[in-house]
Amino acid sequence: MTRRIAELLRAGQPDETVTIQGWVRTKREQKGFSFIEVNDGSSMAGLQVVINQDVSDYEASLKRISTGASVEVSGVLVPSPGKGQRIELKADSVKVYGEADPETYPLQKKRHSFEFLREIGHLRSRTNTLGAVFRVRNACATAIHQFFQERGFLWVHTPVITASDCEGAGEMFAVTSLNLKQPPLNDQKEIDYSQDFFGKPAYLTVSGQLEAEIMAMAFSNVYTFGPTFRAENSNTSRHLAEFWMVEPEMAFCDLDGDMDLAEAFLKYIFSYVMEHCPEDMEFFNKLIDQSVLSTAENIINNQFERITYTKAIELLEKADKKFEYPVEWGLDLQSEHERYLAEDLFKKPTIVTDYPAEIKAFYMRLSDDGKTVRAMDILAPKIGEIIGGSQREERLDVLERRIVQQGLDPATYWWYLDLRRYGTVPHAGFGLGFERLVQFMTGMANIRDVIPFPRTPQNVEF
Amino acid sequence: MTRRIAELLRAGQPDETVTIQGWVRTKREQKGFSFIEVNDGSSMAGLQVVINQDVSDYEASLKRISTGASVEVSGVLVPSPGKGQRIELKADSVKVYGEADPETYPLQKKRHSFEFLREIGHLRSRTNTLGAVFRVRNACATAIHQFFQERGFLWVHTPVITASDCEGAGEMFAVTSLNLKQPPLNDQKEIDYSQDFFGKPAYLTVSGQLEAEIMAMAFSNVYTFGPTFRAENSNTSRHLAEFWMVEPEMAFCDLDGDMDLAEAFLKYIFSYVMEHCPEDMEFFNKLIDQSVLSTAENIINNQFERITYTKAIELLEKADKKFEYPVEWGLDLQSEHERYLAEDLFKKPTIVTDYPAEIKAFYMRLSDDGKTVRAMDILAPKIGEIIGGSQREERLDVLERRIVQQGLDPATYWWYLDLRRYGTVPHAGFGLGFERLVQFMTGMANIRDVIPFPRTPQNVEF
Repeated sequence: MTRRIAELLRAGQPDETVTIQGWVRTKREQKGFSFIEVNDGSSMAGLQVVINQDVSDYEASLKRISTGASVEVSGVLVPSPGKGQRIELKADSVKVYGEADPETYPLQKKRHSFEFLREIGHLRSRTNTLGAVFRVRNACATAIHQFFQERGFLWVHTPVITASDCEGAGEMFAVTSLNLKQPPLNDQKEIDYSQDFFGKPAYLTVSGQLEAEIMAMAFSNVYTFGPTFRAENSNTSRHLAEFWMVEPEMAFCDLDGDMDLAEAFLKYIFSYVMEHCPEDMEFFNKLIDQSVLSTAENIINNQFERITYTKAIELLEKADKKFEYPVEWGLDLQSEHERYLAEDLFKKPTIVTDYPAEIKAFYMRLSDDGKTVRAMDILAPKIGEIIGGSQREERLDVLERRIVQQGLDPATYWWYLDLRRYGTVPHAGFGLGFERLVQFMTGMANIRDVIPFPRTPQNVEF
Repeated sequence: MTRRIAELLRAGQPDETVTIQGWVRTKREQKGFSFIEVNDGSSMAGLQVVINQDVSDYEASLKRISTGASVEVSGVLVPSPGKGQRIELKADSVKVYGEADPETYPLQKKRHSFEFLREIGHLRSRTNTLGAVFRVRNACATAIHQFFQERGFLWVHTPVITASDCEGAGEMFAVTSLNLKQPPLNDQKEIDYSQDFFGKPAYLTVSGQLEAEIMAMAFSNVYTFGPTFRAENSNTSRHLAEFWMVEPEMAFCDLDGDMDLAEAFLKYIFSYVMEHCPEDMEFFNKLIDQSVLSTAENIINNQFERITYTKAIELLEKADKKFEYPVEWGLDLQSEHERYLAEDLFKKPTIVTDYPAEIKAFYMRLSDDGKTVRAMDILAPKIGEIIGGSQREERLDVLERRIVQQGLDPATYWWYLDLRRYGTVPHAGFGLGFERLVQFMTGMANIRDVIPFPRTPQNVEF
């Protein structure tokens, strides 16, 4: 049976007879024998294979082997005399499945820019960096499920196609089966949505929170983990039109419980990845961002700072630093403010709570001061906001008033209000942008390089 | 600290002091004391709570308590004299968070039709049946991740928004940020997609397979688990416009390996759910479909039957049963044929392989006979096709020919063809419709009742 290379590198013993399958990363020909490094994606490091002239079809096989070729090698593990590897594979037989013409194969052994690699999104996962990114991404995702499942949370699938706009905020993509060129019009010369698939305007969701609240009112603790969308024309290194989001929602939970869970959650994910992808993390620390490992340790070992927004404003006003944007109670924190707090001042993740009601969403619980809501944002060094959450407004009358105040129509929220009408409970939750987390974890500068197939303005390739 | 009811029912001991939080399912008043059953969603069964007159505010609290009210109860566990429960909770204090006016709360203690429950999709998870469905759904999802992670597969997130149509088949939803009422036109009076968000027409994906193949060519073994879409106007109990799909893809794998994995996969999920949700499964067996448990055992304990399509046609031709649709080599199997094979003939899951090339997708590997492709469908008793898979065509020239033969444009598949140009390998995969699986598992007749918020023609509520 074929063995995975990660497992052989870890536990393979000299004299074991094994078969591996993978893609050639490098080839070095010597007189009478050759070295090839084979990678199967299970780890950053490949397995060094020694092929000598005794192997049948030596010359013919070797000619077909170059960077990118796919091979199956059987042989015996032997201690490696070379540096940097414990064992190597002495080939008894080599089978070449597919070649990769060195004249045209774009991934030759040299550094490629991330911009260039994005253009060959169908091949870039075969590079060291993107390979490591997607292994870490998988480890993060697995940690997330494990964290919640261990705590009895149900994974709930909230809808991608929706008729409601969660926050009355984010720009949304329309989803339609109408003929775009000649959409049917009604008597008022408006689009006749009764002829569209869903019988009314439909969009791609910006958040599963409101539906997650429905589920929390039945199962107590739930979480979403799925794709969400923004039609904002933001061509930056931090924005995607399609990204994955994690949104836990807990019944019988207040803001303190929410913060406790979020902190335990981040610590858990970082610990899990450090344990399961140590080599990939070391690679990032060495070649991408030299603070990757210290950041992970910082998260795992420190209690997060917790301050109110009001206190944060005081601290920013006292800062001996010039900010581009004004600091004033009532204004939202800008990225420069968030980074100052987390990076310069506290030097660790910082939770800012109790924001002015005016700048936050209608569903956040209004405090007795009448001015602030029980919101919290977790600010991470270098990344800024990584988690945003709140205790939700569970009082029917207050919620109705807030919906109206924000210029929204209570009728469209009939079911959301019903949750407060029947068996309402204090509840809270948060949202984590999954790609931001992976960026944070790996130090990758551009968010397009932590998702396999990024969707951004003018870009929907692959 | 609050305890979950599932855990108390399993392991709670008399004399333990505990606090629970949840929603009242039933209330029975006796002279001087009352019983309430409290459910927190962690299990089908609730915990019986005895409240007597000594509890402070007895009268006032009791007045506020009715089906659907949310409560917190602290007290001591005692052995239950009643039937059907090992322990009950003797309340020391009761706090009512939210009432549920019996005059208007739709979920009173009686049977409701599933049709009615769909209209109150924001409350239906509070019923026994839907509660059990979504616990089982979560267990299925967890089993899927665990199965693949244990085997070193990476979870890859393939895009929801796409410019390509996987099979040149399924009807797709358009995704756009254009003004639908006045879409911009170009000189040719066609829609000017350069002004749309992505600069070209974009759709909701019907499958992540092609992108999963990209990832398998770097990581060997990967799987997708995410939402997929069909804009087909099918108003049936088996179709959703939005549903979740699981699609593993394995490099260096042929059709036999594909079938082995699929069979192990189904057995694993059924075993996992039987172990983690035994009470929910018993409930389904008792109240929804009396074959649920025997079906699960059938799957777990039997080797799946494996026959070729050609053999299947022979068997169908010999069958002493009248079919509505014709049976003839070259025609696709209809649901009645699939059910005959799996239900009547073999009485267990049946894998049909090697279908005529004409009726299958271009990417399936052409066999040496030139007539059939290495496809496989797993047919389950009662459900019909639950898994469809194939070995993929890894030969560049054959694939190009097949694309052209099926009237598709090779240029739009440039990156898919590149996978065969550079380091191609035999590979295979399959797709599992997640909601079909949950239907199969629970015996639920309508697919709209196994997904929290179904999207179907004219229906995008919640």
